[in-house]
Amino acid sequence: MGHKAVTDGQFSLNDLPGSAGRMDILCRCVNSALFLSHDLRRDVVIYLVLLGEPEPPKIVKFSGQDVRYLNPDERSSGSLIKKSLELKARIRWKESTPGVWVRQGDLNDLLIELNINAGEDNEGSVDEGTDNKLYYLLEDGADIRDKMEGTLPQRATFILGDHVGMTPDEEQKIMDAGAQSINVGPLSLHADHCIIVVNNELDRKNNLRKGCD
Amino acid sequence: MGHKAVTDGQFSLNDLPGSAGRMDILCRCVNSALFLSHDLRRDVVIYLVLLGEPEPPKIVKFSGQDVRYLNPDERSSGSLIKKSLELKARIRWKESTPGVWVRQGDLNDLLIELNINAGEDNEGSVDEGTDNKLYYLLEDGADIRDKMEGTLPQRATFILGDHVGMTPDEEQKIMDAGAQSINVGPLSLHADHCIIVVNNELDRKNNLRKGCD
Repeated sequence: MGHKAVTDGQFSLNDLPGSAGRMDILCRCVNSALFLSHDLRRDVVIYLVLLGEPEPPKIVKFSGQDVRYLNPDERSSGSLIKKSLELKARIRWKESTPGVWVRQGDLNDLLIELNINAGEDNEGSVDEGTDNKLYYLLEDGADIRDKMEGTLPQRATFILGDHVGMTPDEEQKIMDAGAQSINVGPLSLHADHCIIVVNNELDRKNNLRKGCD
Repeated sequence: MGHKAVTDGQFSLNDLPGSAGRMDILCRCVNSALFLSHDLRRDVVIYLVLLGEPEPPKIVKFSGQDVRYLNPDERSSGSLIKKSLELKARIRWKESTPGVWVRQGDLNDLLIELNINAGEDNEGSVDEGTDNKLYYLLEDGADIRDKMEGTLPQRATFILGDHVGMTPDEEQKIMDAGAQSINVGPLSLHADHCIIVVNNELDRKNNLRKGCD
């Protein structure tokens, strides 16, 4: 979530933290989510929800499977975000460069699109294809090492705030969608750092699972 | 280690990956080493060993306890590195901005300065003040979660390569200094991502230790 992140393509790549509304945070999140050493995480998708002026809300999506022209530095992801925001965004996704997409929409639209409906009541009716567990990164959540013990859902979605945190309304929507609160350790970290720890935990679980096959 | 990172202050903050010799990697390492959410890791020091042209070798040091004017974006750490490289570097440390220092020197000089002498032969003679364990981040090292099990040395130093890895000569020096090889998980990650996982592991151990006091 980028509460201040600008929603048009007029911002300067030389001032991502300032006039682009802390776009630097989101640029680092893209790096953290997608990069391996000399490779990309092909099975990861990251959605940036941009709520700053002048045309909020918008969502920019990077798909690890398809993305091209992405380098690890902030200017690189910043430049692809900028290109996506230069398009006229509609309700439907539009691809701006390979693997980068933009649409109108906010957190609520995103939760609907991801078909996240992980509440206890619906557990019986969830198709295997929509087995998408929702986790909300929160300082006083449960430790990810305990909470994800033994479980590795088909798909998992992790929601992270930015430097200003979530609004009460956003938090309510997240909890209503059946999210489990987790944290990544005893100290409070930046969103991009949390993503690294989450990816590492999933790498380890995935590795264990492969070992058991 | 920045094998290509330039060693004067003439580089452009708009081209950290290119003409500055992958300085972007080192900038992100500074961020990963030092930032907490709304705080800095006061007990962390990061040394950047710069080996690119025109005046190699140089070491730039960021001290979490003293550093000022540092923001999380790459340009911010890049700008402080640039300022340090504008000074005439000598064998002795010179402070360029609060908490940022520069000197002439390479990996060997740094290992000597850190008084790292963790080989088995010397174990009996190590003072408590120089209890500095050396770890070398390597893909086929032992898992950090196992290797650091139950141990939390007074000081620990972690050595990480950049996108080109270590030379055989550097690797020899590191192993001669008594380093233990560790990795952070089943996949190979960028140096700045490794630092996040290392810090997270230390946070957890430190937290356990505090809980036992």
